Amino acid sequence: MGGRPSVHINLFAMQDDKLIDTLKLPEDLRTLSLPELEQVASELRDELIDTVSASGGHFASSLGATEISVALHRVFDTPHDRLIWDVGHQAYVHKMLTGRRSKMGGIRTKEGISGFLKRSESPFDAFGAGHAGTSVSAAVGMRVALDTMDPSRYVCAIIGDGSLTSGMAFEALNHAGDLGLKKFIVILNDNEMSISQNVGALSWLFSRAVTGETGSKARQTFKDLYRKGYVPDFLYKAIDRAEEATQGFFSSPAMLFEAFGFRYIGPVDGNNLSEVVVALENAKRQDIPVIVHCRTVKGKGYEPAEEDPIMWHGVVPFDRSKGEFKAANTTPAPKKLPSYTGVFADTLIDIAKGDKRVVGITAAMPSGTGLDKLQKTLPDQFFDVGICEQHAVTYAAGLACEGLRPVAAIYSTFLQRGYDQVVHDVCIQNLPVTFAIDRGGVVGNDGETHQGVFDIAYLRPIPNIVIMSPKDENELRHMLHTAVLRNGPSAVRYPRGNGIGVTLDEKLTPLPIGKGEIARNGSDALIVAFGPIIANALKAADILSNQHSISCTVINARYAKPLDTELLAQELPKYSVVCTIEDHAIAGGFGAAVVEFANDAEIPLQCSIKRFGVEDTFVPHASQAEQHIMNGCDAESIVRYVRERRAARQLVA
Amino acid sequence: MGGRPSVHINLFAMQDDKLIDTLKLPEDLRTLSLPELEQVASELRDELIDTVSASGGHFASSLGATEISVALHRVFDTPHDRLIWDVGHQAYVHKMLTGRRSKMGGIRTKEGISGFLKRSESPFDAFGAGHAGTSVSAAVGMRVALDTMDPSRYVCAIIGDGSLTSGMAFEALNHAGDLGLKKFIVILNDNEMSISQNVGALSWLFSRAVTGETGSKARQTFKDLYRKGYVPDFLYKAIDRAEEATQGFFSSPAMLFEAFGFRYIGPVDGNNLSEVVVALENAKRQDIPVIVHCRTVKGKGYEPAEEDPIMWHGVVPFDRSKGEFKAANTTPAPKKLPSYTGVFADTLIDIAKGDKRVVGITAAMPSGTGLDKLQKTLPDQFFDVGICEQHAVTYAAGLACEGLRPVAAIYSTFLQRGYDQVVHDVCIQNLPVTFAIDRGGVVGNDGETHQGVFDIAYLRPIPNIVIMSPKDENELRHMLHTAVLRNGPSAVRYPRGNGIGVTLDEKLTPLPIGKGEIARNGSDALIVAFGPIIANALKAADILSNQHSISCTVINARYAKPLDTELLAQELPKYSVVCTIEDHAIAGGFGAAVVEFANDAEIPLQCSIKRFGVEDTFVPHASQAEQHIMNGCDAESIVRYVRERRAARQLVA
Repeated sequence: MGGRPSVHINLFAMQDDKLIDTLKLPEDLRTLSLPELEQVASELRDELIDTVSASGGHFASSLGATEISVALHRVFDTPHDRLIWDVGHQAYVHKMLTGRRSKMGGIRTKEGISGFLKRSESPFDAFGAGHAGTSVSAAVGMRVALDTMDPSRYVCAIIGDGSLTSGMAFEALNHAGDLGLKKFIVILNDNEMSISQNVGALSWLFSRAVTGETGSKARQTFKDLYRKGYVPDFLYKAIDRAEEATQGFFSSPAMLFEAFGFRYIGPVDGNNLSEVVVALENAKRQDIPVIVHCRTVKGKGYEPAEEDPIMWHGVVPFDRSKGEFKAANTTPAPKKLPSYTGVFADTLIDIAKGDKRVVGITAAMPSGTGLDKLQKTLPDQFFDVGICEQHAVTYAAGLACEGLRPVAAIYSTFLQRGYDQVVHDVCIQNLPVTFAIDRGGVVGNDGETHQGVFDIAYLRPIPNIVIMSPKDENELRHMLHTAVLRNGPSAVRYPRGNGIGVTLDEKLTPLPIGKGEIARNGSDALIVAFGPIIANALKAADILSNQHSISCTVINARYAKPLDTELLAQELPKYSVVCTIEDHAIAGGFGAAVVEFANDAEIPLQCSIKRFGVEDTFVPHASQAEQHIMNGCDAESIVRYVRERRAARQLVA
Repeated sequence: MGGRPSVHINLFAMQDDKLIDTLKLPEDLRTLSLPELEQVASELRDELIDTVSASGGHFASSLGATEISVALHRVFDTPHDRLIWDVGHQAYVHKMLTGRRSKMGGIRTKEGISGFLKRSESPFDAFGAGHAGTSVSAAVGMRVALDTMDPSRYVCAIIGDGSLTSGMAFEALNHAGDLGLKKFIVILNDNEMSISQNVGALSWLFSRAVTGETGSKARQTFKDLYRKGYVPDFLYKAIDRAEEATQGFFSSPAMLFEAFGFRYIGPVDGNNLSEVVVALENAKRQDIPVIVHCRTVKGKGYEPAEEDPIMWHGVVPFDRSKGEFKAANTTPAPKKLPSYTGVFADTLIDIAKGDKRVVGITAAMPSGTGLDKLQKTLPDQFFDVGICEQHAVTYAAGLACEGLRPVAAIYSTFLQRGYDQVVHDVCIQNLPVTFAIDRGGVVGNDGETHQGVFDIAYLRPIPNIVIMSPKDENELRHMLHTAVLRNGPSAVRYPRGNGIGVTLDEKLTPLPIGKGEIARNGSDALIVAFGPIIANALKAADILSNQHSISCTVINARYAKPLDTELLAQELPKYSVVCTIEDHAIAGGFGAAVVEFANDAEIPLQCSIKRFGVEDTFVPHASQAEQHIMNGCDAESIVRYVRERRAARQLVA
């Protein structure tokens, strides 16, 4: 790419009065001419580029799905008919078409609209999403229920080819085909990408798809040959089980979907509005489940995003004309701090360079987990298995069986997809697999669907596993080293975002398992912290000391399992104010483990243990700092609690 | 089936000296003639029928896989080459061939061998199993690791067509094909069944597979036509991308597997030893991933099992010659008690009859969950989605979105597969889905892989869900009713096994959410129980009262979330001995919730809270009663604890 990016927008859209401003959306789409529809698509794309350049957000996927979004609301009577968008990365234009144009500027910010689909946000969001691969399952359920409740409605799932690698999408296709659902349409938005480059054997299947025209021509020629007697009867019949069987033969994705009992329509140029509209209208007429295969260009219409759709998948605000990110405006930190993800990735490379047994695994998140660096540096020690957390975990177990030391880097929220495999394949067999649990804790503007606040609770009851989290990015290095050396399963949990800028030790030293440390000494109150959120505890301790003459001991617990019971037994009884803090749900979390221990060991506490963490609620999207405040896990909340408790005790005394 | 079952066994096997007794297994298989191999298979099958008729166990699958088992150990150099058996139902003959013949009688009993695969049990069990669909993932991992560690070894996964419906199997096939693995073979043991009849669109794909011979003939004819000029060049090339492409064209499962990058061999008669050996030897010679499609007859060689493989899937001891189960020998209970599963199923039918919105969902366990009764009574309100817990949960969410009231009946251990979907699709959206969690608690002789002892811990941190468990089978009826009525997600947890024989109310009455009850009044000790294991608490209370003059209050908590905080706040401070009991891991479980509450609410306890439950260990196979004793959850353990505590306090006082 050289020079200024050319932006393909309709000239009309540059004028002051937009067609979309004159329309009642989405209803009016159904009465427009094709050129008008194209005008609408063009205006929406232009506005989307403007909006996201100002606010940031998921960008390239939605650009590519502009025509599909317009066509769906044209052909279907939404919200009477149901659109179920997978994940949500591609749904910004859908949001704009359904009453949320004016709110796009505040997307993903506190009290703004969500970056994903949300039933409570709009009746047009028929099913909430955020994780990949759920749409077809939900659509099957909705379609079956509608057979009873309202058969007139169509149900459409819109799924990317990346999401289609997830096992549950296959489970759902298999079920849908078996049921032979009517008014059931899956739109495959095939941009040959998930967030990163797509993987899996099936990916070549899509890329070799021939156009419908060639398929038709070959089919016709074959029929002619048969009529002329060149093709023997048994052969023709074997091939021509039905018209679609021959189409299947000439067009490979068709084979696959027809095996699942779907009628295949495509491939269609998904950025050609008229082609998409025709295909969807055709799909409406079928009486079995239909898949409409649309090939789209991720980032379509904004050249920098077309050229590098991975970088432009989700973006911070950018300069539209220059195609440059406005990093300075969004990162107000005075010095550049390394991210936990980055430190993890660099450390893994350090370890893997010296130990060929160490390999990294990602489930379609090479850039998100930082493993793209490993991929570049040590490609033989890197695996991207696609959006397949289940397989990722059991694959890691298999690697470990034969002597490797796999590190599976998976976001906390996505590891929920591999939970059974963690129990059944890794922990029961006590295999040396390290789970690098990124995005452990609140995750900021991705919101409810992506919060990583259940992992301690769901891992803690599993025998054999060790659960750790570092106080800072330097300790993360030593912890990862510790985990990889351990002859059993380990989880290392760290948050989204940046470290605190401590010096990174070059030499890695294993930490003793189940041992915490006193990070700060005091006498009036105790705060036991798990993970980098200890920063808030230390800040609170500073404020309490400097402004209120209350001195706090702060423990860096390091381990949620096994707990440092010796240290806890020694420290817990000393204080009249005791708290725990974690970036996690308090039910069954780290603080719960401390409370359980204090009870079981009959520690003579002077007071109850206050647990700072996430209460029994789904934390909505906002910045991480805002979310910590919502959860009462900020330094000020701790200060307030400790002061109140001290005051209450002094009143009693 | 009429008259006495005919058992197809070789006459040699009826004589005293068996060929298998003279062999060193499995090594010697590699030097035998084909008739001798067939003799071995026949003797093993005969012995398997004898053994299982005496001990019970998983039966029909292993009978069908006899020839595959013999052929695998013949063709591959086990354990140098790796066999990875999916689930384990089909692996009994493999066990017999690998040093465990003499131990088959004690299979699944305390300290006997496992009914599944277990790495710690034998070097021939290359990967442990118990849940379906993991084998291909593990095999991919092992094969990749062996590229580094020891490239000479072959890796074979043996998977049933039922297991292949699970999403993770697809994830793994997609990855394997992408990697283009060598020395990597998947044996598809296709008996058109999982435990029950197989479902899913793909099932017809397998059943319409034509024989390899027809495929070859058609292919040859087509080539001849081309050579003679009847077929135009473009058409031939399109078809004949490679030899396997034409084979794929004529044989539908081939299409599917070739789409995943596998070479397809088959279908082979999997009960014809010579055919299987030839196919496996052919597979060894390929240099890409291979799938060998073996069609087998579940229950092969024992007529009653061939006729009704569902009933004969897993069996209690039976009379071999009569083909009748020895129910009396295995159920020593004097009167016939209804099972929790049965009461659940009957209640669901009662509810569903009166409310068309109520539907039942199973993931390939219609008989296990009792939903086969619903299927027979109200087929339109029943869904079997295959071994697809992920899809089952999100499908339920979709149904609920459109106004239905789905009840997903899934074993606790298998719900781990749908955990992310419980969080992301059901609970975030607060949809009225009922999870009927069967086999909650220890499950007896299935052992480690099937223990349902994590569900409270993994569900409790999720907002919106209510978690309940009844004191007996009658309360289960009212609880299911309560759950179905609730406008949000509910989990109703109940164990494997029989109820206690209480009268079942015909009329269903909703229970107040979050309210427990005092089941027995006392003054010396408190036991708070969650679920049917309250029986052990009540029995302990009887013994304590009758034999030791200690009177206990026993609370039937009913809810783990929300807790009955009012009742707990009132009762907990009254006693100098307080316990909780649950059939679940104590870390993060019900007792943990009580301890957390007591801490948070600063309840003035007189003592610590003893939590009876599963310690931090995987509970091995044994009977359920034996497992309760292992876990210290039997009445005697409670009695001992309460007496010791009372004695200790009296010493102090």
